Amino acid sequence: MKRNPLMIGNMMSNGLILSDILEYAAVYHKNTEIVTLRVEGDIHRYTYADAAKRTKKLANALKDLGVQQGDRIGTLAWNTYRHYEAYYAISGLGAITHTINPRLFPEQIIYIVNHAQDQYIFVDKTFVPLLEAVQDKLTSVKGYILMIDKDQLPETKLKNAIYYEDLIDKQSDELQWPLLADDSATALCYTSGTTGNPKGVLYSHRSTILHAYASAQSEALNINSRSTILPVVPMFHVCAWGVPYSATLAGAKIIFPGAGMDGESLTKLIQTEKPDLLLGVPTIWLGLLTHLDKVNEKMDSVESVVIGGAAAPISMIQAFQEKHDAFVIHAWGMTEMSPLGTACTKTRAMDEMPLEDRYKKQLKQGRPVFGVQLKIVDDENKELPHDGAAFGRLLVKGPWVVDRYYLAEETALEDDGWFDTGDVATLDPDGYMQIVDRKKDVIKSGGEWISSIDLENVAVGHPDVQEACVIGVAHEKWDERPILLVIPKEGKTIDGDSILNFMTDKIAKWWMPDVVISVTELPHTATGKLLKRKLREEYKNYLLNLEKA
Amino acid sequence: MKRNPLMIGNMMSNGLILSDILEYAAVYHKNTEIVTLRVEGDIHRYTYADAAKRTKKLANALKDLGVQQGDRIGTLAWNTYRHYEAYYAISGLGAITHTINPRLFPEQIIYIVNHAQDQYIFVDKTFVPLLEAVQDKLTSVKGYILMIDKDQLPETKLKNAIYYEDLIDKQSDELQWPLLADDSATALCYTSGTTGNPKGVLYSHRSTILHAYASAQSEALNINSRSTILPVVPMFHVCAWGVPYSATLAGAKIIFPGAGMDGESLTKLIQTEKPDLLLGVPTIWLGLLTHLDKVNEKMDSVESVVIGGAAAPISMIQAFQEKHDAFVIHAWGMTEMSPLGTACTKTRAMDEMPLEDRYKKQLKQGRPVFGVQLKIVDDENKELPHDGAAFGRLLVKGPWVVDRYYLAEETALEDDGWFDTGDVATLDPDGYMQIVDRKKDVIKSGGEWISSIDLENVAVGHPDVQEACVIGVAHEKWDERPILLVIPKEGKTIDGDSILNFMTDKIAKWWMPDVVISVTELPHTATGKLLKRKLREEYKNYLLNLEKA
Repeated sequence: MKRNPLMIGNMMSNGLILSDILEYAAVYHKNTEIVTLRVEGDIHRYTYADAAKRTKKLANALKDLGVQQGDRIGTLAWNTYRHYEAYYAISGLGAITHTINPRLFPEQIIYIVNHAQDQYIFVDKTFVPLLEAVQDKLTSVKGYILMIDKDQLPETKLKNAIYYEDLIDKQSDELQWPLLADDSATALCYTSGTTGNPKGVLYSHRSTILHAYASAQSEALNINSRSTILPVVPMFHVCAWGVPYSATLAGAKIIFPGAGMDGESLTKLIQTEKPDLLLGVPTIWLGLLTHLDKVNEKMDSVESVVIGGAAAPISMIQAFQEKHDAFVIHAWGMTEMSPLGTACTKTRAMDEMPLEDRYKKQLKQGRPVFGVQLKIVDDENKELPHDGAAFGRLLVKGPWVVDRYYLAEETALEDDGWFDTGDVATLDPDGYMQIVDRKKDVIKSGGEWISSIDLENVAVGHPDVQEACVIGVAHEKWDERPILLVIPKEGKTIDGDSILNFMTDKIAKWWMPDVVISVTELPHTATGKLLKRKLREEYKNYLLNLEKA
Repeated sequence: MKRNPLMIGNMMSNGLILSDILEYAAVYHKNTEIVTLRVEGDIHRYTYADAAKRTKKLANALKDLGVQQGDRIGTLAWNTYRHYEAYYAISGLGAITHTINPRLFPEQIIYIVNHAQDQYIFVDKTFVPLLEAVQDKLTSVKGYILMIDKDQLPETKLKNAIYYEDLIDKQSDELQWPLLADDSATALCYTSGTTGNPKGVLYSHRSTILHAYASAQSEALNINSRSTILPVVPMFHVCAWGVPYSATLAGAKIIFPGAGMDGESLTKLIQTEKPDLLLGVPTIWLGLLTHLDKVNEKMDSVESVVIGGAAAPISMIQAFQEKHDAFVIHAWGMTEMSPLGTACTKTRAMDEMPLEDRYKKQLKQGRPVFGVQLKIVDDENKELPHDGAAFGRLLVKGPWVVDRYYLAEETALEDDGWFDTGDVATLDPDGYMQIVDRKKDVIKSGGEWISSIDLENVAVGHPDVQEACVIGVAHEKWDERPILLVIPKEGKTIDGDSILNFMTDKIAKWWMPDVVISVTELPHTATGKLLKRKLREEYKNYLLNLEKA
């Protein structure tokens, strides 16, 4: 329908493009540092002004290589200044930064590189062997750009390998970035789904900038020019939750940990570079907290720790608060959401709560940042109440939510334009959302739902438990019942009764797992989530057989 | 040119509409208050949840009155909760909130109401006589909505007058807001230019939301859910600098001062409601500071004062800092920019500066918020250096900058897509912008430019001077020379030599005004800016005559 032109505002259109972020920082935060623990092992530090210059050199080099707007360029790399430069050079030209998760199985990497039709791949030394092994099956790749000093890797079997520094060395550091339309694509991330082939989410300049504005807000990650940020969440995992964009927009100092994701490396980096904001998944923090305990050190600089990717257990929230005086911002999002959906920030109301009550609130994933809308619905799509108790499918919408998967012919949305997250959640009267489960992982016992995540969070608080996993398996009477698989802590053995006793007053009686099984390992997806599908297959008849026996 | 669909991101489009802001606050900040010093004289307080309900009632009432998407609805009103409701009800329906500045001359009000073709006008008691006098000339207006309790104004000569509370009383507080396209118009503000007819700027939902995101950032006005904000800048003046939007988006507490813009009313409101952030033009702060001195009171709650609309003199920056421990955020913008362009926020670098150096920096209008780009150019459109010395025409662009004036057939932009602000400015090596003058007010003496604003800022620091105005007038040898007009403080007389002596070591010798003239009043525009055109006319031969005499 043609609209009356009088109804349309008369303001400038477009103007939301990624190259503007880096140019802005290069002028207005020119002396602010980006520090990297390099894959080479040493510390590299430079400023936004330096970064902008090297990024333009790289962009000029990519133009010389024939890279065109819309071309996909892969990256298989840690969080470093070179990866950061690649982000901006590729997307600034209007090409598409395709970040590849090195934790995917080789077949999945082959699939997504061919699906994306990547023209070049930037690669860290660490991942060169991985690409050497599969390069013959990558049909579109014209060459590999090695993000490593030449003396660190004098030889490689990769065909058409180019050293990053050689590539940019003779290029000019001047360039007029193209004025792209806002909806032009910037970056491509594949979800490492637990079933089927990975699906690509193609972000736009508009969605990326809006996400950066929203996630920098005080109500979200609170990123500003006084921040010093350590994004441990990898740049191959939903663009490090957008930090390379939001931090640059806000003029924050960035500390890139390179390949140093273990507790010891992180401790050293934190104690020397003094970040105030950390971001990462629970597994990383388990490593960090364990190491800090071992060496008996305290983190003085850290004010907040953003935990996402999986639910943060209460024990972790307490450890950061009570041992390190650091507030955990529990957050939730997904690849399809750029990723930020909700954040549980410290509010005025929380200041006045007893600590125990505050922890209960912090266990929730928080409230949506403005721009994201969410609702929970039942199987008939009827909206459920915000009472903190009703479970429902979590639906979202907003300008940084996916519309359609890359190259898909059909929309990814429901008929009414909402995206089904695949999560099941509650919403409380204050608007706080809590993930109860993945829809496919929720346990249906006697017609009622049991949250596997709730049970895991409780079980992991037991002193002997390193990691816990709850799945629903077939049961003659109740259709499904929960069973609990646990990995014991080093030097401990699991006593099932002790664990069930520990859980008794923390959950509803009928939620109690039917059995506790000690295991030595649990399968995970490339992004560190428990791969329950495999376990459900393996244990599907466990209780039935037990009864028969 | 048709783009390859592979180049376009696959994220949701639209989703930046104003009704979402209020709905968001009503859910996630439902208990946060909006407090108003009513025109009726008492204090009114309610929450975002209440505001959303009353706004829906009003929107339902407007629908019953036949208001359609794209219709212009005028408001002639102070900063109050009812005006706030009108903002969201009108724009939420897709109609256009046309805020009318009551300080315009009656002929200008007639002109803009007829130009906009307003269908209804919301009006505060204060401005009823103004409309009664001109209503016969308002050709499009079908009725007037009185924003006052009926017992306070039982009678009016306005035709088709409706009392606000009667209008909404029986309406439902439920409504599904329309899903508007992002570029739909939200609000219309006319610039009270110093020449010609006022020109309208028609904001869109997109520009308004982007401006709200950007201006709430720590780097700009730093508005968040812990803020308590007193916007003294009127809602009829560039939508109170967007605070009704940014504060709602961030979930901040708002204090609306109603008609109480004088020093005494503001002092009382500040001491009882304890805002931490104030926003307004220098004239208002002069009144406030004078009253605080008189009653010998200190503002304890206020952390920052945003000053815009005209340059903040050093004496004002010092008074807020040294007497009230409040940091002045000097800001700059214009109606054509929604309005925020730059803000001089407290940076890490400022923390470490000696106070004298910091004040020098604070005299500048600061750095652009991300989204706004600016440059200074000479008369040949050649970009000038960022050296803090070179003067040039200030050009801007960004997604909340005007493209075309309302109903204009031609673009408001230069050929290369930049908007000429009409200001002359410097940019320093750190990117700080300082307005030197309005282009038409700058003085050209012997081929070199002199800043009238710089001279005024220095002169107003003299203890006898209440207000200062510098204009360029004809001079036989130098083409133009500056003369200084001053209003003395109450009980003082002006000694020209004392003032020139005071200025001696603060400005270049050749900038020194040729003469100081004591006057009892100075003409201002509706938004409080000096109306120099009139003075230039009046004094154009002053120096020539002096020489002849």
